[in-house]
Amino acid sequence: MTTANRQRIIVQKYGGSSLANEQMIRANAARICKRKAQGYNIVVAVSAMGDTTDRLLALAQRLAGDQLPPPREADALISTGELVSAALMAITIKEQGHDAISLSGRQAGIRTDNAYGSARIAHIDTQRVRREIERGRTVVVAGFQGLTATDDTTTLGRGASDLTAVALTAALTAERCEIYTDVDGIFTADPRLVPEARILPRIGYQEMLEMASLGAKMNPRSIELAAVHKVPMLITSSFNDQSAGTIIRDWEEDGKNMEIRKVITGIATESNIARITLRGVQDRPGIAAALLTPLVNESISVDVIVQNVSADGRTDFSFTVKEDQLRRAQEIAAEQKQVEYAELIARHGYAKVSIVGVGMQNAPGYAARMFQALADADVNIEMITTSEIRITCIVEQRSVGIAARALHQAFELGED
Amino acid sequence: MTTANRQRIIVQKYGGSSLANEQMIRANAARICKRKAQGYNIVVAVSAMGDTTDRLLALAQRLAGDQLPPPREADALISTGELVSAALMAITIKEQGHDAISLSGRQAGIRTDNAYGSARIAHIDTQRVRREIERGRTVVVAGFQGLTATDDTTTLGRGASDLTAVALTAALTAERCEIYTDVDGIFTADPRLVPEARILPRIGYQEMLEMASLGAKMNPRSIELAAVHKVPMLITSSFNDQSAGTIIRDWEEDGKNMEIRKVITGIATESNIARITLRGVQDRPGIAAALLTPLVNESISVDVIVQNVSADGRTDFSFTVKEDQLRRAQEIAAEQKQVEYAELIARHGYAKVSIVGVGMQNAPGYAARMFQALADADVNIEMITTSEIRITCIVEQRSVGIAARALHQAFELGED
Repeated sequence: MTTANRQRIIVQKYGGSSLANEQMIRANAARICKRKAQGYNIVVAVSAMGDTTDRLLALAQRLAGDQLPPPREADALISTGELVSAALMAITIKEQGHDAISLSGRQAGIRTDNAYGSARIAHIDTQRVRREIERGRTVVVAGFQGLTATDDTTTLGRGASDLTAVALTAALTAERCEIYTDVDGIFTADPRLVPEARILPRIGYQEMLEMASLGAKMNPRSIELAAVHKVPMLITSSFNDQSAGTIIRDWEEDGKNMEIRKVITGIATESNIARITLRGVQDRPGIAAALLTPLVNESISVDVIVQNVSADGRTDFSFTVKEDQLRRAQEIAAEQKQVEYAELIARHGYAKVSIVGVGMQNAPGYAARMFQALADADVNIEMITTSEIRITCIVEQRSVGIAARALHQAFELGED
Repeated sequence: MTTANRQRIIVQKYGGSSLANEQMIRANAARICKRKAQGYNIVVAVSAMGDTTDRLLALAQRLAGDQLPPPREADALISTGELVSAALMAITIKEQGHDAISLSGRQAGIRTDNAYGSARIAHIDTQRVRREIERGRTVVVAGFQGLTATDDTTTLGRGASDLTAVALTAALTAERCEIYTDVDGIFTADPRLVPEARILPRIGYQEMLEMASLGAKMNPRSIELAAVHKVPMLITSSFNDQSAGTIIRDWEEDGKNMEIRKVITGIATESNIARITLRGVQDRPGIAAALLTPLVNESISVDVIVQNVSADGRTDFSFTVKEDQLRRAQEIAAEQKQVEYAELIARHGYAKVSIVGVGMQNAPGYAARMFQALADADVNIEMITTSEIRITCIVEQRSVGIAARALHQAFELGED
């Protein structure tokens, strides 16, 4: 690289709602150009405009009739949405006086396995991106996609343009990855449920991962990848330039901050959960695997799993799935003839409420405080599951707001 | 190839209006499957659905502001339309029970020069297409696009999915190239102007090329390519299965047909022509080049060119352009200070009427018959230009229908 271009690289990612119309594309191009003028090299990863991906998938589904669209063709189809955004963004940046080039995932060197629809990035050959940067160009990469070793286009899964951005940040050893989205940052709780929720100025990877898995609008795989490669991320709004956003990085390295941090970082909520309970299951080894493997094989995401203590060789076994997968999950569970049980109960109308915080693993008593707060708010707990840095309760859907507000208050998250 | 797949290949092409909605995609997939069931291997080239390309270009133009969208980015953008069609067609063929795969122009091995927006095919590496055929798959190729030696996507020019189809037919030594479109075939004249026009069951490459250049809805470059590689083509309707269509091939090789053919094959018309005349131009060598080169350099398509016999060192020089290029052509012509002239007259409201037929080159008197027919119909001839197999008159736009009908009758084209 020439000296002039040895300057630092920043990767920015713009989601579909940030590219929903021409006005938004222009505003974001202006932000990119401003940053470029500050002396950074900018690499941009873009999603498809607005609801493009959903519209293309719906069309494919209608043409595929009773079947699912073949995954390879579905990927060839929906990957076009990001190509459109990338070219339009490059055109707009050029119009604003800075040189730019759009690259497909393939051209940006993103190589994946061949798991169509949810491919994993194998490696990134950054040669072309670096060459374009050396030429002084802002590089706009179509997010969400890559190429298999057999020269076919894959997509990385819903919301995976974040993943493209994080992977490029790591591969280019860029300074940081800025995710521009339609929220101002990561909140202590869902502000639609908890009006007093506030933006977290900073959060660690592990906590963010729990928050993301538990309903925050972030792609958990991108957080995982960022954690592995220690990619600092900024989550901020493309609609509100006043928002400082949330920085995600390894705060644990920073001893001083550790001391003054709250133990609980935030409340995560997820709605539209269904529960399947098998009562009177014969309690023998392998029963959980026998039940759950067929579900996982059909891409049903089994979430909270609880098995009660066995009494007289029989046990109750419960798990949750997303509401729209309940019917299929129920059918599959019922088909497992090798599992003997007395009764299968399927019910929807649940939600998950979790408290998340790395401090928890060293500080006891948080579970008790959580259950007490929910009891005081008259919220019934249906199931409980814990990890080192979170505690999750399944509650009735209609109680989710009350529960989130009660916990937000109990753990004093509304205060700086 | 295994014996089972040594069977013959047919290339079919479906244009945008043939893919405008789900119903059309299904109907065309059914035609493809039927042909496959008859024992052919099918390779399909598709255009973008309906007005997709125009919509994408309009969006790019709005974002590019006063400038034209950068050609590389415009190509990256509009090439996505064909990717969408190809994937949807492959999905639909599979739904109808036949294996299929979509390939981008790149994946189909189509390599071009780097003239973005009107790239020329350098060669086709058919390896992948052949491999997919061997697997028993119908191969759906995104038309209109290719890849440069520097790994960038190009497009081949408006209407160039025909070109993709012809080039694939030649490269695969396929049996023939079938173009499915929204007309029943090639007519003796535009049926909107000449109600008694009928479909030509057959036409030679040279005549078709003249017809195509003179307004028939065909891509002239695809006809040229077909002529060079002796690719037999069928032009027929995707809306009307009763249409037998028009076969384009080298009929000259077929002595018997030659004898019974009419000398005039058809009447070609093109509307919305403008004329620029420079009166009193100083008549010296190089004057035509000095005038026309700057126009061609700005991609203004100069068509009929007429220079009158010089009188006392001064001459009149006229040429036609498309009406929507008149203003720019006029500006450029006026800027050529090295060309001295007395007066520049720009006028729109003209049309071209041509008679086309390979027989003409050996049979005199057709020009006289043409001019007489137009005179009898009271149509004034503004300019005349001829080639070996056609005679073209520029007439007033409002006379084009009368002129076409008069010529159609004079040369007995309505009769079998």
